[in-house]
Amino acid sequence: MRTFKLTLAYDGTSYFGWQVQPQRPTIQSELQKAIATIVSQPVSVVGSGRTDTGVHAIGQVASCVVPWKSSGRNFGLALNTKLPLDITVTESVEVAHGFHAIRDAERKRYRYQLQMGGFDSPFERRFRWRLKQPLSLQLMQQAAKRLVGEHDFVSFQAAGSERATTVRTIFECVVYPQRASDYCDGLLLAIEIEANGFLYNMVRNIVGSLVEVGLRRKEVDWISSVLEAKDRTKAGPTAPAHGLFLVRVKYPPSIQLESDAFHSFDE
Amino acid sequence: MRTFKLTLAYDGTSYFGWQVQPQRPTIQSELQKAIATIVSQPVSVVGSGRTDTGVHAIGQVASCVVPWKSSGRNFGLALNTKLPLDITVTESVEVAHGFHAIRDAERKRYRYQLQMGGFDSPFERRFRWRLKQPLSLQLMQQAAKRLVGEHDFVSFQAAGSERATTVRTIFECVVYPQRASDYCDGLLLAIEIEANGFLYNMVRNIVGSLVEVGLRRKEVDWISSVLEAKDRTKAGPTAPAHGLFLVRVKYPPSIQLESDAFHSFDE
Repeated sequence: MRTFKLTLAYDGTSYFGWQVQPQRPTIQSELQKAIATIVSQPVSVVGSGRTDTGVHAIGQVASCVVPWKSSGRNFGLALNTKLPLDITVTESVEVAHGFHAIRDAERKRYRYQLQMGGFDSPFERRFRWRLKQPLSLQLMQQAAKRLVGEHDFVSFQAAGSERATTVRTIFECVVYPQRASDYCDGLLLAIEIEANGFLYNMVRNIVGSLVEVGLRRKEVDWISSVLEAKDRTKAGPTAPAHGLFLVRVKYPPSIQLESDAFHSFDE
Repeated sequence: MRTFKLTLAYDGTSYFGWQVQPQRPTIQSELQKAIATIVSQPVSVVGSGRTDTGVHAIGQVASCVVPWKSSGRNFGLALNTKLPLDITVTESVEVAHGFHAIRDAERKRYRYQLQMGGFDSPFERRFRWRLKQPLSLQLMQQAAKRLVGEHDFVSFQAAGSERATTVRTIFECVVYPQRASDYCDGLLLAIEIEANGFLYNMVRNIVGSLVEVGLRRKEVDWISSVLEAKDRTKAGPTAPAHGLFLVRVKYPPSIQLESDAFHSFDE
């Protein structure tokens, strides 16, 4: 048996999130089904974290232990012939035994995509939260800076979720204009957040709060007061799921056994 | 009764093309259904041309004559509340009586999107033809130039289609690298062609032929010989539908009655 690390891109629109659920299509269940077909036995995969219904990924990571005899690259290519069109393995590599996609993750990076004005493009509407009123990029950038560092983010955690500790470190929190799209009118913005871990709904609650500032409904200082309040009722509304992408999960380089497989498949 | 010119963007993936067909979802039938709901009577729309199954549009144009009392802009906004999510009215304006989306069209512009290498991105695969082998951009650019001007394009017309004349003028035929996508690996290329009219499957047959040159299966001069042969069997294969976008249809400015409605809806 060998351990593989799979990197996945998916359009989450048609799925009930990552986690297996009875009778409902999820990313994890599609992936497990594809692997089972390839290796002719049931297999469990571990994801770096759950993504919610409608959330997308460019770089979700999953680990699995399978009786596969060829290279990691060939494992990925084989899986892509079995996966639905909206889920793709972009990288596949053999890793050291014991690798675990959740436990070994050092950092995660999310991107949230916004559209200011314009129309609801048929090509982008599943991937952006469109706001009709103008947003101040500068105010959002100022507010975003207040969140960087080690803080107790309990105010940005969804009600009802329980974690041992709600202290996390945000290494980066940036708001930036994106390139104009060939498919889409309006001004495009993105918020990217990299941290050593995230509480449930933390990104979407931060985005909803930054948007409150961008819309000038709240002052920049308000973000700091939400953080200090340590009160789940103080943050802004939860941004909708469909603008959110899991972009990257970072692991220690030492886990990797193959040297050349971290490339996208080009054949 | 007043005449309106509608500009439409659509993701053609789920439709059997533009033209109404019994029992099958088409863009024209969805649009006619939406208009009928708004004005409470059956309405026929005229499109600037048919798009095939799976072909997309950023700027398809349709005309209709309806008993609508408010502005063109409000007509478009009302339609967008009734249309499916993958079809959007991006502009709507009242035009002079007698405007006809096919007859009055002066030029049309198409874009065909390619991806060289990389993986099949879940976010882009419905909108690009992915080629595994490298393409020479330079050779494709040289070949594209051979097609500009007034020519008999019968060699690039689909077999079985009949037109009074097969002479058309291509004003522009360019092959260019596109911006890298945030969703997609590989090198992205596009081919844009603007002409006073197109024969059936002409863009897809030109693209298939330019790709033959890009893959170095054919010389640049071969494109000229295909054109000169006036023989439908000489051109390259037909490129798949899903990379094709109708980008723009140009009309004389004089047709327009309202001055301020040619903007995308920003509220």
